[in-house]
Amino acid sequence: MGIVLGANRYGKAESHVVRLNDDPDDGGRHEIRDLTVSTSLSGDLEAAHVTGDQSQVLPTDTQKNTAVAYAKEHGVTSPEDYALALGRRPLVACPAANEARISVDEHAWDRIPVEGVIERHDHAFVRRGGEVRTTLVTVGATTTVRSGLTDLVVLNSTGSEFTGFLVDDCTTLAETDDRILATSLTASWPHHDDADRDWDVSYAAVRALSLATFATAHSRALQESLHSMGRAVLDAHDDLVEISFAAPNKHRFLVDLAPFGLDHLGEVFLAPDRPHGLIEATVLRDEE
Amino acid sequence: MGIVLGANRYGKAESHVVRLNDDPDDGGRHEIRDLTVSTSLSGDLEAAHVTGDQSQVLPTDTQKNTAVAYAKEHGVTSPEDYALALGRRPLVACPAANEARISVDEHAWDRIPVEGVIERHDHAFVRRGGEVRTTLVTVGATTTVRSGLTDLVVLNSTGSEFTGFLVDDCTTLAETDDRILATSLTASWPHHDDADRDWDVSYAAVRALSLATFATAHSRALQESLHSMGRAVLDAHDDLVEISFAAPNKHRFLVDLAPFGLDHLGEVFLAPDRPHGLIEATVLRDEE
Amino acid sequence: MGIVLGANRYGKAESHVVRLNDDPDDGGRHEIRDLTVSTSLSGDLEAAHVTGDQSQVLPTDTQKNTAVAYAKEHGVTSPEDYALALGRRPLVACPAANEARISVDEHAWDRIPVEGVIERHDHAFVRRGGEVRTTLVTVGATTTVRSGLTDLVVLNSTGSEFTGFLVDDCTTLAETDDRILATSLTASWPHHDDADRDWDVSYAAVRALSLATFATAHSRALQESLHSMGRAVLDAHDDLVEISFAAPNKHRFLVDLAPFGLDHLGEVFLAPDRPHGLIEATVLRDEE
Amino acid sequence: MGIVLGANRYGKAESHVVRLNDDPDDGGRHEIRDLTVSTSLSGDLEAAHVTGDQSQVLPTDTQKNTAVAYAKEHGVTSPEDYALALGRRPLVACPAANEARISVDEHAWDRIPVEGVIERHDHAFVRRGGEVRTTLVTVGATTTVRSGLTDLVVLNSTGSEFTGFLVDDCTTLAETDDRILATSLTASWPHHDDADRDWDVSYAAVRALSLATFATAHSRALQESLHSMGRAVLDAHDDLVEISFAAPNKHRFLVDLAPFGLDHLGEVFLAPDRPHGLIEATVLRDEE
Repeated sequence: MGIVLGANRYGKAESHVVRLNDDPDDGGRHEIRDLTVSTSLSGDLEAAHVTGDQSQVLPTDTQKNTAVAYAKEHGVTSPEDYALALGRRPLVACPAANEARISVDEHAWDRIPVEGVIERHDHAFVRRGGEVRTTLVTVGATTTVRSGLTDLVVLNSTGSEFTGFLVDDCTTLAETDDRILATSLTASWPHHDDADRDWDVSYAAVRALSLATFATAHSRALQESLHSMGRAVLDAHDDLVEISFAAPNKHRFLVDLAPFGLDHLGEVFLAPDRPHGLIEATVLRDEE
Repeated sequence: MGIVLGANRYGKAESHVVRLNDDPDDGGRHEIRDLTVSTSLSGDLEAAHVTGDQSQVLPTDTQKNTAVAYAKEHGVTSPEDYALALGRRPLVACPAANEARISVDEHAWDRIPVEGVIERHDHAFVRRGGEVRTTLVTVGATTTVRSGLTDLVVLNSTGSEFTGFLVDDCTTLAETDDRILATSLTASWPHHDDADRDWDVSYAAVRALSLATFATAHSRALQESLHSMGRAVLDAHDDLVEISFAAPNKHRFLVDLAPFGLDHLGEVFLAPDRPHGLIEATVLRDEE
Repeated sequence: MGIVLGANRYGKAESHVVRLNDDPDDGGRHEIRDLTVSTSLSGDLEAAHVTGDQSQVLPTDTQKNTAVAYAKEHGVTSPEDYALALGRRPLVACPAANEARISVDEHAWDRIPVEGVIERHDHAFVRRGGEVRTTLVTVGATTTVRSGLTDLVVLNSTGSEFTGFLVDDCTTLAETDDRILATSLTASWPHHDDADRDWDVSYAAVRALSLATFATAHSRALQESLHSMGRAVLDAHDDLVEISFAAPNKHRFLVDLAPFGLDHLGEVFLAPDRPHGLIEATVLRDEE
Repeated sequence: MGIVLGANRYGKAESHVVRLNDDPDDGGRHEIRDLTVSTSLSGDLEAAHVTGDQSQVLPTDTQKNTAVAYAKEHGVTSPEDYALALGRRPLVACPAANEARISVDEHAWDRIPVEGVIERHDHAFVRRGGEVRTTLVTVGATTTVRSGLTDLVVLNSTGSEFTGFLVDDCTTLAETDDRILATSLTASWPHHDDADRDWDVSYAAVRALSLATFATAHSRALQESLHSMGRAVLDAHDDLVEISFAAPNKHRFLVDLAPFGLDHLGEVFLAPDRPHGLIEATVLRDEE
């Protein structure tokens, strides 16, 4: 029974690539796509580990250069399109690789409003929200595309309760029929193929419907909110079969104001950073 | 020549206080103010340091409780109003103190749009941008109010040059007449008194004018952009006498695509995290 | 084909629990264990998601309380012991759960040296390094224990080369036969059972051997360094069958000093934060 | 009354410079100094702001190059020596500047122990603690040197009380005669001139004495601990006249275990991230 190399992969993480499009036909209006790109390879790369032979290794520096070159050559019509193009390259450039994994995070920008005009500026931008659009592509024996978002911070100041839970000898939490529900949402959904489609439109629709459902569905637990959102997305999008969520329960604790001689009508809260609840759930179509 | 206590202050930093207003006259529409509050005191507090006598010390825990109680009792019509009320309290509660310093950072939220309606939701919110509204109040022999913002990330994809600079034997930078200019803006401006005014309106106006000027003024250096912004704010707001900026130059370096057989028309950039340029400047009215 | 709930789990993340032991038999010498604890449950919890029924839900607040109570009741002789005790509880307290996952990160402290004495202080500590000791336990149909570390930042200032790699039309990297090799090491290794053992001794031995191997093994790539470390650990520890690494290649780029009229003997480097290489590999015993 | 430029400065922040010394006379033993360097200039630089004229501006890119070149040319015998050399340069290279401010943070490394030998490795290192050694130099009409440290995390598990404080109607805190006292210490001390001295020895002595005093002095408040430390440093170091501290009180809250049927002997604590107390104090020699 010897000692052998197991699963392994390598690549370049978090190249921050900015792609600017200046369309001369559009009167100098710029488009900007601001991306953090990570690429990695796996395959028959045992020699690099065991004997130190690098002859089948495409350096991570070259992977970064490729991410840059492809931003120009193929362009970035969407993170998904760009990731797919980028994922196909290493399998050609690095014969020993049999799978490429590409992760692209997009940081959105809004045009700056022009004072006194109901228009938006052509080339001046302000960074939008904290949320990040995510894409994870693998190219290998099969190709998979997973779209998503992370760090979308949302809050419902009513319409949420938490009652009827299990009680044991470590329980100190009180039931509540009206609380603040806040989370920093991570969601992602696979596409069943990599056929060309309008990825930006698809993304915007899932994001908007998730937000609207969070806003309007009554919640008896964060679990129920996530389930409602997942169901709403699958109901409306026949082409999607599954959506996964991870959602910290970012507690806003009601402060007892009685010691200060004040009543407490659910109006002042303290918000600790940690610990926080963490709910993870997938909603999917039943195969039957 | 003995050893003595010099300048000193103490307080509670970064209490995260959330104030919710449910106006029954407004059909259940909630207002939310999400604040990080720091308070500190200075004065004749030598005994606590030198002999360990705490009898003149208002504990930082009590300062936190006061920040909570005042959010309810005085409310939060604006960060400035709330900070002023909070700053007056310790001088009463802690006789040895002669100055209170109050810092309030506000994290903004937008109402979630309601699908299919051109309205915004009454009680569901999504966190707005990364920017933070700042307020620094001192209450003592005099009272000062300083309003501001931080982490407002802006970018101009053209209209910026950098040429004609000093050259020495460590220079490797090339001149450019068209570059991306990006920064994470910090700005703050003092008010000449603490008289009651609409702090929210004042803040929004300075923020909007700063953004619009950044967007439209041609820039020969980040220094010139800041100066244009400061001048525009002071020109438009007779009641302000000074505004200070700190602005990292968040470089977007043009990538030379020639090694990859591609031309390079200023379309692909790499953005390092560090190092970054850092420009600080104050623009003020001449006293003469 | 309906819409159903898929994989899901929930729990409390990052409770920061500090356990202090004051052994009266040891002359007042304190022991401190500083832990970040996350617990989560999965099982037959569909009702909470689909109908909002919380009757089978053990609240995350109770999970936090349990982490606190067990730090006292069972103590913390090692993170692994504590995690195992903690993992067995929810399966009793929450009948619908069929798996508990417990993650414990330990932050180490060193005793402060006593000036003028060759001893260490009994109750004053200084935080050790940035590294974190990690433990991941699952209790369910089977029980698994995985020990590890993260954020162990190491550097070899010579004895590392990178040559003979694949070259394509995106390659700009030059070969080097002497470079700085630096990484922030993450490693973890499963134990084949949860039988009682001295987890602290086992951890210290794997950590020390990994460090010593990194220091002394010649490296033709970070891949080869990781493989050498894994092999050394498995060679020396018959009871371990597998170890996994994730290691960013934290580049130190040699600066070309020629433009400044200086020679460049590999003495000055610039260290970007991002992007960085990322190598992941597992070394294990061959089953044959 | 016109609008004019006020205080301003600009520079390059956070260049991460690594200096490696290979002393051939020392058998290939390497020395490493790992620095984050920020430089900035002020002076008669109004034209850059007001008219956009850059002819007197030494670009921040050149400042970074200078930091790199000087690491080689002047070397880094200590952060202070290097900062002083670096601070004198811009006043020559940039005639409009009349003050240079140089900040150097040093990240320490320990040699990796060699297994089986009581020696330390010649060229393999592990990053030491989280603490950072700081240096702030200004070169202008006068030259000032300020040495210090930050992020030195220390904890005393007994020997600290907090009693006898002011009580008002917002007080909920209970008195305690035995608590954990923990802080992340920032300290800095000016030197009265920039004459050559052994900066490394001076730094190590102040650091060790601060730690030893924190460990052994009984504390009736964090204020008293800081004062004891400051007094001890000034008593022992005739050449120092002043030392300043900033110290968050990183609370470890005793958990009430009674609800869980357990006694509570001060053994289990929960540690929130925020809010935290913050104490700032300077100790100095009386001029009289």
